[in-house]
Amino acid sequence: VARGGRGRQLAAADGLVESIHFRRDEPPFLLGRKALAVNLSDIAAMGGRPRRFLLTLAIPSDLTPAYLDALVAGLADAAAEAGVLLAGGDTCASPGPLMISITVLGELPGAEAPLTRSGARAGDGLYVSGPLGVSATGRALLEAGWRPAMARRGRTIDRAVPPGEATLTQRTRAREALRAHLDPRPRLDLGRHLRARRLASAAMDLSDGLAMDLRRLTDASGTGARVIGPAVPIGDAPRALAALLGREPIDLALHGGEDYELLIAVPPHREARLERLGLLFVGRLTPRRTGLVIADGVGGVSRLRPAGFDHFNRPPTGRGRGAPSPAML
Amino acid sequence: VARGGRGRQLAAADGLVESIHFRRDEPPFLLGRKALAVNLSDIAAMGGRPRRFLLTLAIPSDLTPAYLDALVAGLADAAAEAGVLLAGGDTCASPGPLMISITVLGELPGAEAPLTRSGARAGDGLYVSGPLGVSATGRALLEAGWRPAMARRGRTIDRAVPPGEATLTQRTRAREALRAHLDPRPRLDLGRHLRARRLASAAMDLSDGLAMDLRRLTDASGTGARVIGPAVPIGDAPRALAALLGREPIDLALHGGEDYELLIAVPPHREARLERLGLLFVGRLTPRRTGLVIADGVGGVSRLRPAGFDHFNRPPTGRGRGAPSPAML
Repeated sequence: VARGGRGRQLAAADGLVESIHFRRDEPPFLLGRKALAVNLSDIAAMGGRPRRFLLTLAIPSDLTPAYLDALVAGLADAAAEAGVLLAGGDTCASPGPLMISITVLGELPGAEAPLTRSGARAGDGLYVSGPLGVSATGRALLEAGWRPAMARRGRTIDRAVPPGEATLTQRTRAREALRAHLDPRPRLDLGRHLRARRLASAAMDLSDGLAMDLRRLTDASGTGARVIGPAVPIGDAPRALAALLGREPIDLALHGGEDYELLIAVPPHREARLERLGLLFVGRLTPRRTGLVIADGVGGVSRLRPAGFDHFNRPPTGRGRGAPSPAML
Repeated sequence: VARGGRGRQLAAADGLVESIHFRRDEPPFLLGRKALAVNLSDIAAMGGRPRRFLLTLAIPSDLTPAYLDALVAGLADAAAEAGVLLAGGDTCASPGPLMISITVLGELPGAEAPLTRSGARAGDGLYVSGPLGVSATGRALLEAGWRPAMARRGRTIDRAVPPGEATLTQRTRAREALRAHLDPRPRLDLGRHLRARRLASAAMDLSDGLAMDLRRLTDASGTGARVIGPAVPIGDAPRALAALLGREPIDLALHGGEDYELLIAVPPHREARLERLGLLFVGRLTPRRTGLVIADGVGGVSRLRPAGFDHFNRPPTGRGRGAPSPAML
């Protein structure tokens, strides 16, 4: 957040790297959409309005013109939908992976403070804006050999094609999961609504999984947190497909990443208003000394591992993002 | 350039990709400095004041902590020198090359228009802010096996180490060339000066070589240009070392790239003031129909090839940068 002129300016940067964040055989139109969407999500989570973006593309020599055209069409589609304009950038060759690096610039209208990770207090309620683990299920499906069948000239996912036998329910949930993963629709309006009505003490978008992102929020706010395990909203897709994928539904929901829902801390006297918006209670912030714990709902409490897609410790399909901190410099 | 609030905001993005823009064995402290410097140069060329930057790092798993520390120290050093603050960004793993993608945000104080590529008119004088081809000589030296010997714990280039025999003059010029290439010092103040005094009709920084960047300026301004070959200021390093490298000095100066000097168009009645600033006349803008030509000073005129470091058509040591145009979307 930078103060300057009448309004305040927001900026967020996020990169997608081939074979870390995506695979070349994923639909390029959707990749273009997603590359912009994940950046718009950051601005929206602060309660800002995205306005412009800068694009740096490092393009491998074996990328086909058709692929690049589709990628750019996807970027243009998402930009038009969100009303943001390309303001500059850079294209260069890459010796290996395709890399898409985007910076989104936005405005913070009005006088309210932006939503940040650091405003939460012990006692605040903890909410998420939708079911979790759906995108992670989509990624696991891709790794297991499922593929999207595209329609509308590569612009939408028509159905999910399994590597072997699959029931109709599995196919339906798999399509939902592939859509969540390959064509995420971040909560672009919710952050502005929360900020304008001063409903939240802190907020951030869930890009690396509830467990890891909650750790970031509590670290920034100087609190602990107690998550109520049975309250964590597990999506239908992870419920239906986790067993097939050899995963636990709650693991996909807590550690899966790329949900692009908002994680929101709310002062107790505003919780009723939050719930009327349809937001989902998942726990409560606690004093810092209690750390991050998860209750099993039947009296047991265990430590919540802050694991997620910290891709420095994962195989090259992990996806997380971490901002370089000013302390780095 | 975005209008918003009292001042106007500027943004520029530029990426450096390993084995395209740099090699892993180049000094990481200087690489960090350069990654920021080339972006600051873009803002400065518009006459703006850089304020903040966003950093996206894609980090290969084989990068050592010492390398990363030195890279970040170089970024911090250049940021402190220019008075810019890290405002955010992203770090992620890379399956191959190290990639450093930076967006610099700046302000355009006052009411003057920013310096752009598009304001030049036929008849305007064409100037550059310093000798050309020095950085390209440095790159060619690295390719030929010359190496920098570092001092001050990897922070400065002490001397140039040749792969074989070399004279003292060659070593001295080689050090100058390696410094220009590995630790460029863009013209951060000149753009603001030109803009504040309304001296230039158009300006841009020379990142891809005079020939290619002049083509961009004339395309944007709707003019042609006539470069006076003998007026092109060839640096001492290309003069001294081109033969050793199997290159022509004028080729390094016209097509070398990464000079980070400014290319400036000036209305005729202001040329005398420009010359008092020490800027160097290299030619004149012409009507569009005449295209880009270079005069040899003895009556001959030939077409100026708009070649430079268009790395999509070059081996992986080319370095150029091209912005994605809004027309792409």
